[in-house]
Amino acid sequence: MKQGKLIVLSGPSGTGKGTICKQLLPGADAVLSVSMTTRAPRPGEEEGASYFFTDREKFSEQIRGNGFLEYAEVYGEYYGTPRGPVETHLRAGRDVILEIDMQGAMQVKAAFPRGIFIFIMPPSMAELRRRIESRGSESPEQIRERLRKAEAEIGYLWKYDYVVVNDDLDRAVGDVSAILRTERLRVNRAAEGILDRFQRETV
Amino acid sequence: MKQGKLIVLSGPSGTGKGTICKQLLPGADAVLSVSMTTRAPRPGEEEGASYFFTDREKFSEQIRGNGFLEYAEVYGEYYGTPRGPVETHLRAGRDVILEIDMQGAMQVKAAFPRGIFIFIMPPSMAELRRRIESRGSESPEQIRERLRKAEAEIGYLWKYDYVVVNDDLDRAVGDVSAILRTERLRVNRAAEGILDRFQRETV
Repeated sequence: MKQGKLIVLSGPSGTGKGTICKQLLPGADAVLSVSMTTRAPRPGEEEGASYFFTDREKFSEQIRGNGFLEYAEVYGEYYGTPRGPVETHLRAGRDVILEIDMQGAMQVKAAFPRGIFIFIMPPSMAELRRRIESRGSESPEQIRERLRKAEAEIGYLWKYDYVVVNDDLDRAVGDVSAILRTERLRVNRAAEGILDRFQRETV
Repeated sequence: MKQGKLIVLSGPSGTGKGTICKQLLPGADAVLSVSMTTRAPRPGEEEGASYFFTDREKFSEQIRGNGFLEYAEVYGEYYGTPRGPVETHLRAGRDVILEIDMQGAMQVKAAFPRGIFIFIMPPSMAELRRRIESRGSESPEQIRERLRKAEAEIGYLWKYDYVVVNDDLDRAVGDVSAILRTERLRVNRAAEGILDRFQRETV
């Protein structure tokens, strides 16, 4: 059984990587990693679906036990990708998608240099501002801060394998689907199984 | 302007790579290289569409002038991929598809190690025999010879980047389309243009 592939979808906040992920998953033949967080559940969020919810003490313990592929503290709360489920899926030959921020992606790249790293790019700074503003959840100062951060983060593009511009959602989902499909066609991944079947059917 | 990509579709005779190519091209945003041959045109074959037709003397001269990416003599006739048009398209940023036999593919790989090499695989030897027999154009001895050759050629699979099993034509065409789409999303190919546009629209 071949190992699954780790696929990392990342990009500045507000590029729509979460929306792409949601549209992608039904047809993707891959599992989405569920993050763990210390922040309180919001209405409608379900344990194990949106996040695994936990407390600071347990989170810290799991950090010390090398139990995260990546983690970060954001506005005083911890967020992280639990290592165990990801490694179990990969060993079972299933592809795993991580939808994480860019700091997290760079931590994962250090541990999984052969993962597939996809950068989701906003079409322009103007459009990114429009999207963040339309959420209506942040102060003008927070919005300026997010945009400054996004501009800096775009320089990390070169650390990724693929870049997908999210100017049209259907096209962006199609692009990511094509990447997933293509990765399964690589000779070093697919050839053994194909040759096995071929030889069985020849006899 | 970024160079185009050279995409090589190859595989044993009878795997249907020509049919895949024909279905692929209308939507592929790539040009198909036209081979040159010394054999006589068959009814319906058009100069410059099916092949460039020429004589042995001119073909030999073009060989001496390093004018082919790959060539071979098959049953006493020469076949080859003229170098000039391919290099012109690539320089103009257009992707070029070569649909060639496996000896040719290995010659091209020596010259263009960064091309994309796609192996089109028959689903089984039994199915390959059925397809070659159904053409009705070869003697039992020729068919046995083709199958022996195909079996040996399948070992070359490991020299390729991707493998596509042609058991279902639509799926195989979809696989090759996904590979072409994915190759255009590679950061080292796409990022410069995307960053240029991004910065222009930001101002």
